[in-house]
Amino acid sequence: MAQQGSVFSLTTPAVLIDEIIVDKNIARVQKYMDEAGLKARPHIKTHKIPEFAKKQLAAGAVGITCQKISEAQVFADAGINDILLTFNIIGEEKLEALKALHNQITLTVVADSTHTVDGLAKTFSAERPLRVMVECDTGGQRCGVQTPREATELAQYIAEQPSLKFVGLMTYPMPNTEDNVEAFFEQTAGLLKQAGLECEIFSTGGSPSLFSAERTTIANEYRAGTYIYNDRSLVRAGHCGFDDCAMHILTTVVSRPTESRAVLDAGSKALTSDLLGFTDFGYVVDYPEAVITGLSEEHAVVDLSACTKKPEIGEKIRIIPNHTCVVSNLMDNIYVHKGGEFDRKLDVAARGKVW
Amino acid sequence: MAQQGSVFSLTTPAVLIDEIIVDKNIARVQKYMDEAGLKARPHIKTHKIPEFAKKQLAAGAVGITCQKISEAQVFADAGINDILLTFNIIGEEKLEALKALHNQITLTVVADSTHTVDGLAKTFSAERPLRVMVECDTGGQRCGVQTPREATELAQYIAEQPSLKFVGLMTYPMPNTEDNVEAFFEQTAGLLKQAGLECEIFSTGGSPSLFSAERTTIANEYRAGTYIYNDRSLVRAGHCGFDDCAMHILTTVVSRPTESRAVLDAGSKALTSDLLGFTDFGYVVDYPEAVITGLSEEHAVVDLSACTKKPEIGEKIRIIPNHTCVVSNLMDNIYVHKGGEFDRKLDVAARGKVW
Repeated sequence: MAQQGSVFSLTTPAVLIDEIIVDKNIARVQKYMDEAGLKARPHIKTHKIPEFAKKQLAAGAVGITCQKISEAQVFADAGINDILLTFNIIGEEKLEALKALHNQITLTVVADSTHTVDGLAKTFSAERPLRVMVECDTGGQRCGVQTPREATELAQYIAEQPSLKFVGLMTYPMPNTEDNVEAFFEQTAGLLKQAGLECEIFSTGGSPSLFSAERTTIANEYRAGTYIYNDRSLVRAGHCGFDDCAMHILTTVVSRPTESRAVLDAGSKALTSDLLGFTDFGYVVDYPEAVITGLSEEHAVVDLSACTKKPEIGEKIRIIPNHTCVVSNLMDNIYVHKGGEFDRKLDVAARGKVW
Repeated sequence: MAQQGSVFSLTTPAVLIDEIIVDKNIARVQKYMDEAGLKARPHIKTHKIPEFAKKQLAAGAVGITCQKISEAQVFADAGINDILLTFNIIGEEKLEALKALHNQITLTVVADSTHTVDGLAKTFSAERPLRVMVECDTGGQRCGVQTPREATELAQYIAEQPSLKFVGLMTYPMPNTEDNVEAFFEQTAGLLKQAGLECEIFSTGGSPSLFSAERTTIANEYRAGTYIYNDRSLVRAGHCGFDDCAMHILTTVVSRPTESRAVLDAGSKALTSDLLGFTDFGYVVDYPEAVITGLSEEHAVVDLSACTKKPEIGEKIRIIPNHTCVVSNLMDNIYVHKGGEFDRKLDVAARGKVW
């Protein structure tokens, strides 16, 4: 692959990341969090690259968020020393890995059941207790205790374990459900106070409704991931514009079988099948009227009916994906550029870390 | 990770491949192809593992099919010496890589435009012409020339290039469109004969309707991939039963937030978002009434409403994915077992080879 000049000369498909936009996105969100009085703890799932996490920390983030131990290991080994792991860690091998990680960095995990807490409790020791938050389901309908009462009971159970330290509440909210989050956190805070338990952290997150985070009166930490690159779903959510999207997938038109059809050399192995509510598979930057109607693993089929000018075979065109995080997980590396000028190739170091 | 004993002891999520079923699936399809008088040229996209391709060749396959050059490089380097690359290869760097590959093995590629042919023609030489097939669109609406007339003209154009050799027709058919394929191939064969061109290979493929391939009177090579593992989509197509599915994704129940909800530690990073016409994200082997209603990147949300017995936190359960090929592309390695007994860990050597 070409290592200098325009990124348009790269062999396709290639994931291009505009560092100017990355830096702008980080600065914008950090400034917002600072003004809102919220600690930023970016979720690294979007980029999976230690160098970019360090940019976020340098801008003012208090630490990072990972979802899986094997991801956290990559970032800890790269020198990042404050990690929140927002996952119920279960199973002997994972608990052993967690222990090693805990000896290396400041580690916080979540739990939503006594089962998870019991596993943690027997793994750690009172000499160096593990920091544990209670995960709360405030409407996301994924993991999490269901009521403030349950949250309080689990917090008490954690606090009773000499090897663990209860430090806060964490939720994975749906976009635009801030009121639910506030109510759940407020009620639990009241119950915790009655129970004599201190609650240091109230952690919420999500990029889509990030810019309404200032309205909180109780949350004090915010986890967001996608904002560093942005994507088509965040443009739709009103979070940003297409010009704020740092990730483009560079593709080549490999076939023009009919007047209205183009086929690109990037399929679900590059763009993923994630629709996120869209009916097509990405925004075609260079031909905004083009519609990516279908993907197979290595091909995108594009309907050009609405295009006045149509791309030719061999032409390179850029796509903004529906969902940027899942694209990062498909790529061994990305190409960093500044306004189109190639700068460096980076490994996606935490790609494929599923456990 | 545990390297002996039951695969159920592996840390999750983990992709389990039952080698007994793999061998049975290969033998079944090879026998069918032999009896139908068709040469088998398996598509390696499903497994992406040279060792499994060698099993297919040992059973009687004439060579393999790859979609991308970087995949073909992996298999050529592993000693496989007859590869069909079913992709329009465009761009200088790819053509250079193609040239190196052509010097290493017996290589055949496809083209559906004079643009593609021109690139190939200038890259290769008359001393060692490259074998080229014309890709035909017989209803798949992806790449391919649109009519037998166009196919013949492009075949003539290829035959006129001293550095290329026209060797046949290739199509990517939709399931159950054998009649279209037959008609397109028959008509083109007639036109090619009139033009004095020999056509050595008529190549069709696809696992879903593989067992009707015997009805062809003209196709002589068959490309199929998924049959080696099988998946939920092939069970639905009537190609096989759940017991013929070699790939299971082993997961752990990490949360039971409500009576009817379980959350697994495998999300779209393990199962992919590929629905293939289903409305849920895989078949839960151990709880067939359970429905995987949603995926985020690291979590699957499972509706247990219809289950009389329900899984507990910490329990390991197996999933047959909707689409097996895309799962292989997410995993650095898979765990081979024989009826549940761990045998070996294999790298998915051609994972993530997108160009």
